[in-house]
Amino acid sequence: MTAFDTPVRLTAVAAPDQPDVTPALEELYRGFEEELLVPLWTEIGDLMPAHPSSKASTHLWRWENLRTLADRAGHLVPVGRGGERRAIALANPSLGGRPFATPTLWAAIQYLMPGESAPEHRHSQHAFRFVVEGSGVWTCVGGDGPSGGGTDAVPMNRGDFLPQAGWNFHAHHNATSEPMAWIDGLDIPFQWTSEAQFFEFGRDALTPEECVTPVRSRSEQLWGHPGLRPLSATHATPGSPLLNYKWSHTNAALCDQLALERAGFGGTVEPGHAAVRYANPRTGGDVLPTIRAELHRVARGAATAPVRETGSSVFQVFDGSGVVSVGDTSWTVARGDLFVVPSWEPVSFRSEAGATDSDEGALDLFRFSDAPIFEALHLHRTQKDT
Amino acid sequence: MTAFDTPVRLTAVAAPDQPDVTPALEELYRGFEEELLVPLWTEIGDLMPAHPSSKASTHLWRWENLRTLADRAGHLVPVGRGGERRAIALANPSLGGRPFATPTLWAAIQYLMPGESAPEHRHSQHAFRFVVEGSGVWTCVGGDGPSGGGTDAVPMNRGDFLPQAGWNFHAHHNATSEPMAWIDGLDIPFQWTSEAQFFEFGRDALTPEECVTPVRSRSEQLWGHPGLRPLSATHATPGSPLLNYKWSHTNAALCDQLALERAGFGGTVEPGHAAVRYANPRTGGDVLPTIRAELHRVARGAATAPVRETGSSVFQVFDGSGVVSVGDTSWTVARGDLFVVPSWEPVSFRSEAGATDSDEGALDLFRFSDAPIFEALHLHRTQKDT
Amino acid sequence: MTAFDTPVRLTAVAAPDQPDVTPALEELYRGFEEELLVPLWTEIGDLMPAHPSSKASTHLWRWENLRTLADRAGHLVPVGRGGERRAIALANPSLGGRPFATPTLWAAIQYLMPGESAPEHRHSQHAFRFVVEGSGVWTCVGGDGPSGGGTDAVPMNRGDFLPQAGWNFHAHHNATSEPMAWIDGLDIPFQWTSEAQFFEFGRDALTPEECVTPVRSRSEQLWGHPGLRPLSATHATPGSPLLNYKWSHTNAALCDQLALERAGFGGTVEPGHAAVRYANPRTGGDVLPTIRAELHRVARGAATAPVRETGSSVFQVFDGSGVVSVGDTSWTVARGDLFVVPSWEPVSFRSEAGATDSDEGALDLFRFSDAPIFEALHLHRTQKDT
Amino acid sequence: MTAFDTPVRLTAVAAPDQPDVTPALEELYRGFEEELLVPLWTEIGDLMPAHPSSKASTHLWRWENLRTLADRAGHLVPVGRGGERRAIALANPSLGGRPFATPTLWAAIQYLMPGESAPEHRHSQHAFRFVVEGSGVWTCVGGDGPSGGGTDAVPMNRGDFLPQAGWNFHAHHNATSEPMAWIDGLDIPFQWTSEAQFFEFGRDALTPEECVTPVRSRSEQLWGHPGLRPLSATHATPGSPLLNYKWSHTNAALCDQLALERAGFGGTVEPGHAAVRYANPRTGGDVLPTIRAELHRVARGAATAPVRETGSSVFQVFDGSGVVSVGDTSWTVARGDLFVVPSWEPVSFRSEAGATDSDEGALDLFRFSDAPIFEALHLHRTQKDT
Repeated sequence: MTAFDTPVRLTAVAAPDQPDVTPALEELYRGFEEELLVPLWTEIGDLMPAHPSSKASTHLWRWENLRTLADRAGHLVPVGRGGERRAIALANPSLGGRPFATPTLWAAIQYLMPGESAPEHRHSQHAFRFVVEGSGVWTCVGGDGPSGGGTDAVPMNRGDFLPQAGWNFHAHHNATSEPMAWIDGLDIPFQWTSEAQFFEFGRDALTPEECVTPVRSRSEQLWGHPGLRPLSATHATPGSPLLNYKWSHTNAALCDQLALERAGFGGTVEPGHAAVRYANPRTGGDVLPTIRAELHRVARGAATAPVRETGSSVFQVFDGSGVVSVGDTSWTVARGDLFVVPSWEPVSFRSEAGATDSDEGALDLFRFSDAPIFEALHLHRTQKDT
Repeated sequence: MTAFDTPVRLTAVAAPDQPDVTPALEELYRGFEEELLVPLWTEIGDLMPAHPSSKASTHLWRWENLRTLADRAGHLVPVGRGGERRAIALANPSLGGRPFATPTLWAAIQYLMPGESAPEHRHSQHAFRFVVEGSGVWTCVGGDGPSGGGTDAVPMNRGDFLPQAGWNFHAHHNATSEPMAWIDGLDIPFQWTSEAQFFEFGRDALTPEECVTPVRSRSEQLWGHPGLRPLSATHATPGSPLLNYKWSHTNAALCDQLALERAGFGGTVEPGHAAVRYANPRTGGDVLPTIRAELHRVARGAATAPVRETGSSVFQVFDGSGVVSVGDTSWTVARGDLFVVPSWEPVSFRSEAGATDSDEGALDLFRFSDAPIFEALHLHRTQKDT
Repeated sequence: MTAFDTPVRLTAVAAPDQPDVTPALEELYRGFEEELLVPLWTEIGDLMPAHPSSKASTHLWRWENLRTLADRAGHLVPVGRGGERRAIALANPSLGGRPFATPTLWAAIQYLMPGESAPEHRHSQHAFRFVVEGSGVWTCVGGDGPSGGGTDAVPMNRGDFLPQAGWNFHAHHNATSEPMAWIDGLDIPFQWTSEAQFFEFGRDALTPEECVTPVRSRSEQLWGHPGLRPLSATHATPGSPLLNYKWSHTNAALCDQLALERAGFGGTVEPGHAAVRYANPRTGGDVLPTIRAELHRVARGAATAPVRETGSSVFQVFDGSGVVSVGDTSWTVARGDLFVVPSWEPVSFRSEAGATDSDEGALDLFRFSDAPIFEALHLHRTQKDT
Repeated sequence: MTAFDTPVRLTAVAAPDQPDVTPALEELYRGFEEELLVPLWTEIGDLMPAHPSSKASTHLWRWENLRTLADRAGHLVPVGRGGERRAIALANPSLGGRPFATPTLWAAIQYLMPGESAPEHRHSQHAFRFVVEGSGVWTCVGGDGPSGGGTDAVPMNRGDFLPQAGWNFHAHHNATSEPMAWIDGLDIPFQWTSEAQFFEFGRDALTPEECVTPVRSRSEQLWGHPGLRPLSATHATPGSPLLNYKWSHTNAALCDQLALERAGFGGTVEPGHAAVRYANPRTGGDVLPTIRAELHRVARGAATAPVRETGSSVFQVFDGSGVVSVGDTSWTVARGDLFVVPSWEPVSFRSEAGATDSDEGALDLFRFSDAPIFEALHLHRTQKDT
């Protein structure tokens, strides 16, 4: 008899207005089980809710704890071929222990000791790195082949955002004398669930020439000038050709928005709330086909209105302190803390000065989400609660 | 202590080249558990395989068995508000007993008794109906409101394909004296996993005027003429404005392709293999944002080359008989049989005359898949095995 | 001295608020002439009017006269390599005697005697044929090479619309015992002015096999089924893959719209005014990159509201009779009559029964325009006068 | 008798293989004239050439002469409502004395005296300004209304490129004590020929607050950060939201390309030839729907290969000196000189040090063209002569 891999027992009663359980009805349900069938009428509440009601929970991870464990792993667990990366992923408490921050997004702290390299590989998963602290480690993102000539060494410093579209070879190397931590974001859960993943090993080692850290990547030299595109670049890939969005640019853009607001010209999302989206200069669209990334700045003393959105987000506090609310939960957050916002849960922020009480004290939040998936499929909705 | 909803126990050893399990390493893993973290290096084989390796199995459902159970349900289980539809879904044996034919696709037999109606509702899930047998039942698909004026009664007959993009109100009514069965295809699993679902009830009953079955729907009168679009239609929705793709057109297109091939002019996918894709006449693209639908005809005696593709498909045998191979499994199939093709599993067909040995004897296969999701996100691959 | 090819004399006075003409000012204008310069302030009224004010006139050409002259040319002027086509173009009376119906559009009557062929060539100009009377002549449109295998014989009958995107080889052949006339529409003036034209000769003669008239072209067998696209067709060209839009389909679509209106369901542009646009089934967009084509039916006794539009149109009366108004001019029109609507001139129609006073008596108008040019460049506007 | 506005006389003989001129043939041609018809066979050589053969000539305008005449006009001709702008246009010697640099493009020197303003207006023509010398004059580009709140003051300095999409209100003001000159580029000839122009007056005067020159425009504060877009900007217009492409960025991008080339990593179009295209950060595409703009740098001693392209270009020498070749014509050029490249004429450059023989000595060329028109319509071709 063909049957479910896991034993399954259908219940003959469920929805309102269903008939009494008679022997005939029981027999019908046993027939469903034998034929590997499940009726809609017992499942519709779970399958077709009035609005998204996430299987995931909201949760906060403290950066201090992550960093401590990552450092311990740096001393205990080698990085190399097979394991590929010393990356430790956020596992949403309600997703069965899987390393999934949300049903679609992966978020991990990655840690590299002085002199260490993570070997070259490529995968269909779209990825990025965001640096909350430290500097000097670089990543090496290649084109469509594992050749040295095709690679581009990209330095990483605090505040930098480094996207890497799927199927480009890449490795990492720490050329400094200090360990370094950063976060990785990928669409691993989305591709795992929808089953679209491809993976390939590259070279096991980088050349000495490749280990020299440049000041700027070649991608920045070609694509890092506002509103200008190189005539020499002709071929198109689905992701951004700009491989490092340096913090100095991001910070300047946010400062400019708040300055415009102060001058009475708008420019912000709402009072005291500046925000930029990392964009592909080739298309103006999202930086990766499945991942949106943004930096939000909430000026000192300002608060944002709760917003709901189809799909999930992961946030990391880049700077400042304040209070974050997701659904009914609130946390006081500090630099590096990470939290997730499940689908359709309202999220809002309030910037509050911490102990040092500086004059600036804005709350800076890095955010990434799966919104491009839903926008591409005409499934995206957003709602501002008032 | 914050912890996983379900008890989770991480294993300190996994990938090759991992260190011996020392107390320090054990402590590290217990620290991961406490902080809701999971290392990549123990999971990478599952998360990042060389190519998609589906959690789903291939499986065949016999139409005869489905139809018998559906008929029994027709006599035992009422259809109405709450349960909404008398739909009985294929549940892949390897997906935990959930009513998911594949990780992204829902396929169900729906059954309506003479005079019965299924109540009006709408949902973000994209849907279609395909009719393998019977006729006379119609579906009533509305626009963006539950008003009678906005609805369009669409008749259903054998071979007809009826798409219905998300968020349109719709109901069903059987105006004949015979029960009728058809299959429903939706992206329920995809939206359930990615958490994008919205649902709303419509009116509880249709008007008597709405219960008169027309020969052709209004959508066909406006959009059912090849290469012609009405100037009166201005607003765009994400799905096809054509609500019934009648079998007579589909059959004629397939006959034409085989006639072109016989005349030496190509026209087929490969020798003896004609195929059409249902297209949105407003864009030329897929008929639904998340679902592709096609009809394949394998001429008598012909066989197709195995093809692999990112994402999954569900097939229903519309006519003829033959042998179907998915991966290492083969079945002799007959009218109405349904089977699934998991991601990256090779699928091929051979048309073989059954007992009656008629002169025609082509094998006609209706297929739907999740390919538009992957194409929109630049994740689609296909490979012809030779 | 460098100077204008044609003697040019600039006038030193023009716009209001200009200074008196002094010797210094005269000297300035003579300096402009010498340096090949022209000031804006004397030309702005012509160059930048409040709205388009066409250099072209509206004009009506009577089909009877055109046909008579074309027939005379059929007996006096051979068709062959060099002259290429026996096509006689409408020359707008205000465009300097050039064979331009409007500043962007070419319209000509083409005439082929029994047994005659027009030789194969291709050009970047986008083209179509529309058949107002007669049948049996066919056109032979190829792909990207002048080989027999790539050609597709397309029959032509009354009411058929045959698009042919630029740079496809094509020839014509009259296999019947009667002469035949049709109209050609091209973007010759647009490409002549903007200087984008390429042209290449093909073969001088067709093969005997190619001279057999088919009932349907291969393009119709592949692409002539509503909402269905062949899986075998993979490469994309800028124009429609459907090479004949048969009258039976166009007529059915118009009848359906009027039937929907009578049933109280809208479907028409305005009361009594049905209209279809010829569309590319691969994209849903216009049938040619620079030319829009439509068929309008004004039911007997109905009248349309005046409409203005950026860009120009050419109309041909396909059937019926009535009154046409363009700007301040009105004509009573009959089958085959052609007229032009310059940019931003209001156009409207009234269907009136002629002598025979039949029950049908709708006024059928074929129209083509340059609207896709302006839509592609975000320059298109339309306005309904009330 | 209806007839051509201008007397037209058709010639009965033209193409090869045409019949002898008989009285019957003469009568046919007189019939054509009476009916406002022109045969294709006498015109095809002009209308359908093998490749574009421009009606325009190539020509060079010396900046020194332009500037002298503009300055004289500054003292003799007022600027104000009616004449609108003190702009003096290049008139191609072969285009009948019209102020058209090429069949599609307008190029003019605009000149504003200290304290002068040019009044507010808007038009459908797409426009830009490019500054070859001087600084301090600013332009004020508004949104979709003539209100002060919607305007954005944009400073202009040497090397800056300022696009302004059609139908935005704009004015100019010189707040300095020196006259200033810059060049205007528009698609006036294209819209004049295709008849798509709309024009509307705005306010006659600016407010005193609007006359304060800012360091950066608001558009730069919102959109001038590489790869970053503001979340606050939601509505889309067809042109770029970035209103000043500052020289410092353009120069840095060109330096970076040459540095990449020196380091062995490509990055240039060809050896010694760096080039950037001004892009719309919202789409990555051209900065204006009908106009492409680029800056080319030819390193000292380098030369470029001749290139042909559908459509026409206007170049201005921004810096350096060298030799320019267009078709069979060559000129030694200096700062500010302007020249035109007609459709399909090959153009190439050679950088040559002038008298001062500095170490840098690159030849910098600003270029604008009508290429987006042809690309949008699938009519664009380019060819590198070798």
